[in-house]
Amino acid sequence: MTDKPATPLLDRVASPSDLKGLSDPELKALCGELRAETISAVSETGGHLGAGLGVVELTVAIHSVFDTPRDRLIWDVSHQCYPHKILTGRRDRIRTLRQKDGLSGFTKRSESPFDPFGAAHSSTSISAALGFAVARDLGGAPDPALGDAIAVIGDGAMSAGMAYEAMNNAGHLGKRLIVILNDNEMSIAPPVGAMSSYLSRLYAGAPFQEFKAIAKGAVSFLPPPFQEGARRAKDMLKHMAVGGTLFEELGFSYLGPIDGHDMDQLLPVLRTVKDRATGPILIHAITRKGKGYAPAEAARDRGHATARFNVLTGEQSKAKSNAPSYTRVFAETLIEEAARDARITAVTAAMPDGTGLDLFAERYPSRCFDVGIAEQHGVTFSAGMAAGGLKPFCALYSTFLQRGYDQVVHDVAIQRLPVRFAIDRAGLVGADGATHAGAFDTAFMANLPGMVVMAAADEAELKHMVATAAAHDDGPIAFRFPRGEGTGVTLPERGEVLEIGKGRMIAEGKGVAILSFGTRLAEVEKAAESLRSRGITPTIADARFAKPLDRDMILKLARDHEALITIEEGAIGGFASHVAQLLAEEGIFDHGLKFRSMVLPDTFIDQASPRDMYAVAALNAEDIEAKVLDVLGIDRLDRRA
Amino acid sequence: MTDKPATPLLDRVASPSDLKGLSDPELKALCGELRAETISAVSETGGHLGAGLGVVELTVAIHSVFDTPRDRLIWDVSHQCYPHKILTGRRDRIRTLRQKDGLSGFTKRSESPFDPFGAAHSSTSISAALGFAVARDLGGAPDPALGDAIAVIGDGAMSAGMAYEAMNNAGHLGKRLIVILNDNEMSIAPPVGAMSSYLSRLYAGAPFQEFKAIAKGAVSFLPPPFQEGARRAKDMLKHMAVGGTLFEELGFSYLGPIDGHDMDQLLPVLRTVKDRATGPILIHAITRKGKGYAPAEAARDRGHATARFNVLTGEQSKAKSNAPSYTRVFAETLIEEAARDARITAVTAAMPDGTGLDLFAERYPSRCFDVGIAEQHGVTFSAGMAAGGLKPFCALYSTFLQRGYDQVVHDVAIQRLPVRFAIDRAGLVGADGATHAGAFDTAFMANLPGMVVMAAADEAELKHMVATAAAHDDGPIAFRFPRGEGTGVTLPERGEVLEIGKGRMIAEGKGVAILSFGTRLAEVEKAAESLRSRGITPTIADARFAKPLDRDMILKLARDHEALITIEEGAIGGFASHVAQLLAEEGIFDHGLKFRSMVLPDTFIDQASPRDMYAVAALNAEDIEAKVLDVLGIDRLDRRA
Repeated sequence: MTDKPATPLLDRVASPSDLKGLSDPELKALCGELRAETISAVSETGGHLGAGLGVVELTVAIHSVFDTPRDRLIWDVSHQCYPHKILTGRRDRIRTLRQKDGLSGFTKRSESPFDPFGAAHSSTSISAALGFAVARDLGGAPDPALGDAIAVIGDGAMSAGMAYEAMNNAGHLGKRLIVILNDNEMSIAPPVGAMSSYLSRLYAGAPFQEFKAIAKGAVSFLPPPFQEGARRAKDMLKHMAVGGTLFEELGFSYLGPIDGHDMDQLLPVLRTVKDRATGPILIHAITRKGKGYAPAEAARDRGHATARFNVLTGEQSKAKSNAPSYTRVFAETLIEEAARDARITAVTAAMPDGTGLDLFAERYPSRCFDVGIAEQHGVTFSAGMAAGGLKPFCALYSTFLQRGYDQVVHDVAIQRLPVRFAIDRAGLVGADGATHAGAFDTAFMANLPGMVVMAAADEAELKHMVATAAAHDDGPIAFRFPRGEGTGVTLPERGEVLEIGKGRMIAEGKGVAILSFGTRLAEVEKAAESLRSRGITPTIADARFAKPLDRDMILKLARDHEALITIEEGAIGGFASHVAQLLAEEGIFDHGLKFRSMVLPDTFIDQASPRDMYAVAALNAEDIEAKVLDVLGIDRLDRRA
Repeated sequence: MTDKPATPLLDRVASPSDLKGLSDPELKALCGELRAETISAVSETGGHLGAGLGVVELTVAIHSVFDTPRDRLIWDVSHQCYPHKILTGRRDRIRTLRQKDGLSGFTKRSESPFDPFGAAHSSTSISAALGFAVARDLGGAPDPALGDAIAVIGDGAMSAGMAYEAMNNAGHLGKRLIVILNDNEMSIAPPVGAMSSYLSRLYAGAPFQEFKAIAKGAVSFLPPPFQEGARRAKDMLKHMAVGGTLFEELGFSYLGPIDGHDMDQLLPVLRTVKDRATGPILIHAITRKGKGYAPAEAARDRGHATARFNVLTGEQSKAKSNAPSYTRVFAETLIEEAARDARITAVTAAMPDGTGLDLFAERYPSRCFDVGIAEQHGVTFSAGMAAGGLKPFCALYSTFLQRGYDQVVHDVAIQRLPVRFAIDRAGLVGADGATHAGAFDTAFMANLPGMVVMAAADEAELKHMVATAAAHDDGPIAFRFPRGEGTGVTLPERGEVLEIGKGRMIAEGKGVAILSFGTRLAEVEKAAESLRSRGITPTIADARFAKPLDRDMILKLARDHEALITIEEGAIGGFASHVAQLLAEEGIFDHGLKFRSMVLPDTFIDQASPRDMYAVAALNAEDIEAKVLDVLGIDRLDRRA
């Protein structure tokens, strides 16, 4: 750790209202202090650095011009919100970012009135802002009363259909609504999609460095002479170069592009918009991710997400890994399979790094498709490839697969098309918290007729499941695996094609059987070790499949044991529900079975380490042990014996 | 029924290959016959009439110019596919449309190789077509081999983000891909959204009647002189009037607008595109829904969906209804509640008629929002309104709510925002078949922390649930109800606010308890009547809530009965799974309970009447009776006694 930066101006800002007393030069100076404070904080906590550094000026400008929290400011995705949190009364806790019981890494309604709408998934901000704008006009009466609705959305987020749907609706309704397009030509990964090229062309057509241009759209609501920033704004209008933009076609006034790091542009533009806007307006600001911190600017991902680091050198202090990550094992296995089968393709929705498909793309660039933040399209595009005889692997985080659910049902499952779903980040994910938890996929996938659903217990199992999915041509198949490192198990040379619907016995015991689905198996084994020291020898099985179930194995477990406990890294409605349905229909409950299901609890669990989150969820080894003792009727006293 | 039309040309067309021998004048004449045959068939079967009539010329032109099924033709939504089915070897079964064991009302892969990608939900066609285009270029090898990929998509479907995501990706990839925008300014409802206005402006800017214009985009791939349709095409280019369209910004060549009913425009344009297209191209064709059949053209919905009708008069033979539809009860109750509470608003995603919100909009136009086919936005827009202090009712069909699932999780549930979800068309829906079944919502909603999930047993219950939802401000709440008529129960003057998480006892009996969630209750009562004649008096309860469960009631039912059977109109993972989890955790299974769950089976069920579909699902009264007898161990012989 280095010394904290000197921040004389920032020290005077307890809330955005304190910005009102600052002159423009002071606001500019404040930006430097806010940037330094952000770097200093993230160097201690780790987290999303680059995005926040890119919006320091925007953050100061918006809060100084608008009246937050009365004016509702909605950060899209909101991993760029650290400077915003520092300015809005949370500076004292900023060094708890993403820690257990600390500040969330995203905006969060329960955390502050300055966070009127939480986010973490992309492209929701325009919809939410439009909701606030309508509520304002219809007399919705929350506290504080409603002023402006302002969405700040990145260029990457513009590739999502949801943003388009919102603009289409907002342009139609015509209500006053302010959208700031934070165009850093870089979301998590390099930009993809025609929209991204389009934005680049807008910028190329009227680079602010030369023209200080504001688009024609401004004419409609900016009556000259301007009362604020008059000289500069006039200058801009003189050089209007862009018009008839895509945004204008959708009913927005378009202003830009402007330099999102130049307060001499930001402040007058925002002030004019605040005074004059009547309908929906889009301000196109060009920024640079990682701006002002050399190690971030130099990084390939512009300091997107970082571990704790040394401020002077930028060197990150990453924990040494003991085993390859599940993501890496998935990607490397897929590459191996792809070498054997030219029909294998891969789809990612703007997460090439996160899904490991960056490795696949290096090896097979023409067979890897980054569709942008576009899960709906990504799933149906995969279905089309499958119908065309290819073997697409659609690699999505569990939480983002929710975006393509209808497409999984309607385009994949009903048509029995062999799309392979590689569901990464299944279960609880740690610092990203509740919004990124992969809690629901087993339930919403396994209830689809014809869908095969697997969960890997360790990285060797994952390797088998990738091979199994590659070989499975008779309908869709999904396999889920968690964030983070594997267990360190020896990896087989080549993945083995598993028999569909067959689990595996891990340990033969008696009295109680524990049936695990996914990586809780390691915790089950830990619990069993402890139980054995008490003379209890549980049977352990790895279900491998939530669908189809290994009926024979499960019925045998039920019949041969007094108690059967299932465990999974998912919410109710998933694996356990399928097991319960089987047991009920087979009449197993008729004569008694101590059946218990360990599932994620009925709460959204805040960020912490995955282990701590699983402690809250009561799915760790000690919880399993307690459950076994409970179900066997061994009371607290006996336990201590 | 009237006599079938004379169709001498159509009689010679057994498959699209037979079109190759027809001259252009014959193709034009064939359109008249195909239109007459379509009208005649739908007059017998009922179904989607207007959409098919609007694409008769497009259908003939595409099949005559392209080489289907080698060229993959994908109809978006596909309720316009009846003429296509007539031309593609299914004329002999066209009068079984939407009937049990008959042709589907949509395209369906299992029905014909001419249906390469089924559809029913909107806006999937460009994604699927891009998948085929990629498969072709990567050497996917289905049978038949891959040629062109052609998507026909309506202007309404263009409001969906998914279509934008697909164009964004297609424009980026640059592969040859043909999108035909079938612009009838009318999907199911009048058009909404900025995109719709934009398309109108394109048309107004270059109406084909005056200019026969083709856009500038064509220049890039249409080298003059044209080898086919040269004179006309030259004419068109002379009058180029539109350029730099939104589609071109997204990387497509844009051709149009052209008259989609004028074969003299359609044929040369399609022939030129077939010969010359290299990258993605969008052909903008203006059509008229219901074209060529006066009663349809005159109807407000342009003959969108019709019962059987008299061809001469257009008069529909609708069955007399005995009770108001659930949809109507929902809408009327919402209007009543809205009169009492100015904060109530309503959101529909392009289904004002289907959801009954057309009635609400008549009364409260400023409080009703048709967001277009945009469920993702619709849900988060509702969340924004809720955060702004309004009381939004987001009215969606169960099957379309799947489109907004991530938004329900991320924007509504995690933030505990009081959005009210009115889930129409829950359960099996009849003629629309598997693609429209509302099978999964209970599972995917009830596993979300903090979500309240209700199902109405009859229309009076629905009235209570609307009132309950209006009153419930502490987090999100959902209520589901089926398509069709209510049971005819007396409606209360005003809906009663139900106690959250409390069910109701319907009949006290002994031995077996049947716990119903939703409108199967009527079937349960029928089954009970029959059972009582055998001396079996089941207890009957209406759960009302899948979440939170009425724990006390359910545990009492379990403890007081030998057997407990749950029934619901939903797939596994829903109500029954929550009950099973409760019973397991309470140790009810430890000492034996004959527990059974009647849920939708693990198959997609083809179209038929809802009653017939529920027979396939084994959820009718006779199935309930059989289940009771089974669980009580009363064998077949006893049953006959």
